[in-house]
Amino acid sequence: MNKTRVELGPRSYDVVSGANALDQLPALLAALGVFERTLVITDSNVHEAHGGRLDILANQTQLFKTSIAPGEASKSIESAHRLLNEMTGLGMRRGDLIVAYGGGVVGDLAGFVASVYLRGIAFIQVPTTLLGQVDASVGGKTGVNLTLGKNLVGTFHQPSLVVADTTLLETLPEREFISGMAEVVKYGLCFGGNLFDLLTTALGKAISRDVAVVGQIVALCIASKAAVVANDETDLSARAVLNYGHTFGHALEAWAGYGRFRHGEAISIGMMFAAGIARNMGLLDSDAHLIHEQMLGGVGLPLNAKFDRKSLAEYWSRDKKHQTHPRWVLLHKIGYPQLHSDVTDEAIQTAFDEVSA
Amino acid sequence: MNKTRVELGPRSYDVVSGANALDQLPALLAALGVFERTLVITDSNVHEAHGGRLDILANQTQLFKTSIAPGEASKSIESAHRLLNEMTGLGMRRGDLIVAYGGGVVGDLAGFVASVYLRGIAFIQVPTTLLGQVDASVGGKTGVNLTLGKNLVGTFHQPSLVVADTTLLETLPEREFISGMAEVVKYGLCFGGNLFDLLTTALGKAISRDVAVVGQIVALCIASKAAVVANDETDLSARAVLNYGHTFGHALEAWAGYGRFRHGEAISIGMMFAAGIARNMGLLDSDAHLIHEQMLGGVGLPLNAKFDRKSLAEYWSRDKKHQTHPRWVLLHKIGYPQLHSDVTDEAIQTAFDEVSA
Repeated sequence: MNKTRVELGPRSYDVVSGANALDQLPALLAALGVFERTLVITDSNVHEAHGGRLDILANQTQLFKTSIAPGEASKSIESAHRLLNEMTGLGMRRGDLIVAYGGGVVGDLAGFVASVYLRGIAFIQVPTTLLGQVDASVGGKTGVNLTLGKNLVGTFHQPSLVVADTTLLETLPEREFISGMAEVVKYGLCFGGNLFDLLTTALGKAISRDVAVVGQIVALCIASKAAVVANDETDLSARAVLNYGHTFGHALEAWAGYGRFRHGEAISIGMMFAAGIARNMGLLDSDAHLIHEQMLGGVGLPLNAKFDRKSLAEYWSRDKKHQTHPRWVLLHKIGYPQLHSDVTDEAIQTAFDEVSA
Repeated sequence: MNKTRVELGPRSYDVVSGANALDQLPALLAALGVFERTLVITDSNVHEAHGGRLDILANQTQLFKTSIAPGEASKSIESAHRLLNEMTGLGMRRGDLIVAYGGGVVGDLAGFVASVYLRGIAFIQVPTTLLGQVDASVGGKTGVNLTLGKNLVGTFHQPSLVVADTTLLETLPEREFISGMAEVVKYGLCFGGNLFDLLTTALGKAISRDVAVVGQIVALCIASKAAVVANDETDLSARAVLNYGHTFGHALEAWAGYGRFRHGEAISIGMMFAAGIARNMGLLDSDAHLIHEQMLGGVGLPLNAKFDRKSLAEYWSRDKKHQTHPRWVLLHKIGYPQLHSDVTDEAIQTAFDEVSA
């Protein structure tokens, strides 16, 4: 069992991870206080596979459950509206609790409704996907999509607790697990260190979901994320490096229509694109570019795709991460990400060539 | 011209009020920074009467305008969704600005969309109603309604600036102005002091919209509100006294259907109700109760109404302001509000009798 503290003054919280971490949930929740009512928001897949795991809370709170349809389409204003009406119907009050029990979609949506219901109530994250455990559940970003793009609406609302039970990953579909590995590789490439070394030596074990290796990976990613979030809660500076691969990735997802690419697949190609730009601009050497290819390819992630260049470029000129000009996260070497507003059109066009299927 | 600073650390801001305060807006905005795009959100009444007043900003920002239908029904998730889509359509970014130009509905709705668009962008309040100028525009509460109640969804998102130009009040319909006076009387009753004295001596001038008296009233209310908000930004304790009359008032509005009672009319009866409870419990003397009646009646506000007791009581047991038991703001004397969880059913029933038409 690992415990990492996200240090944010009065909004600090613990992230507890490891095999069967959920067994600790009653005690962890009791330490937070008394919650009269708790609404677990989950999706129907998680409900089917692991719905009963949270019933251990029924002794200490009035427990309600609700499900959304799995998938990105549920991250909508309409879903949020339905959940908010449901919460009022249950008579939920300021001292009550939301539990986000699912992947990134559930976490982002449940966090959002918790943040705006009665101007904000407490919520805890119980991520059930690799993506959720290593990245999305920590940091307090909530969001829903609009027609024109992902996460265009949202808030910063820190959870009161995150519990990442790695045994929940055992039932993840292969494609979902692989997709989550893209964020893991992102942490390895951006921050280097122990995680990068582990990925270099034990990638096969990671992919076969070796309990010990997956546990180490999750804990190392959480530690990196917690440190970045503590330095930049509202994503004004340091936190931007976590968007490595995301400028291209978000554009690809939006262009293709949500659901065709998994998030991790899109950012895998996005990291290859960013590595291409960096190499084309003379910032990153060919060896490091090759490491991208070997690590992402070794996981089984896509390195290229078919897409429309003009549409993608239009999309990222509108993406929220950008001020007037897109800012790209580029690596100068493994573990050294930097923000760049000086990316040349030439470097982009060449990188486009490289990641076009 | 009056300037009051709302002291909230990094979220501090100025509230500028007085006749023709809007003339200062270009300079005040320039002092805040450069905003590439500015979207003015207003309602069609304000647009018709004063739509041109903000065109003075066109030299320093790309100025867009959009209108909502006047009235409480616009404070909905659907309206918020439409505005958010419009903002994406305009390509608005994190460094852009929302101006809420209207009454409480516009302020609450525009503040809400500013708070959730791209996880929060800057907004300024230019309140055009008495209610907005003396109360709603200061303090950063945003909100939209759900079917089951008002302001059940919202955020705390402080404006970067509030400009309350009292000349905008000249075109307010009589009923709207009178309704706003209910909040003014609330400040007088709850905080006493100069405002209470002014209302005692110059109520007639206030109602006839004497420029000097209205200017003083607005400035005094803003000063009270700013002090309360600085002590309790997120409404955990001190700020609760601003809900004097609101427990009953919100229930009456919800029961009658939004729009039948103006907010001020409902809280006027709500203050009579609270004064009745306090007197029935021996907390408030009859003279102070009579002052409520004289002041609210003198303004032309209703002191009673027809309503269904059971529905109202059910409503406030669900109201977000309450934890497990409704907490009532009661006056012990003029200027001394206290929170009470110990209100007896008997005191409530007698107060019901007193405010039933």
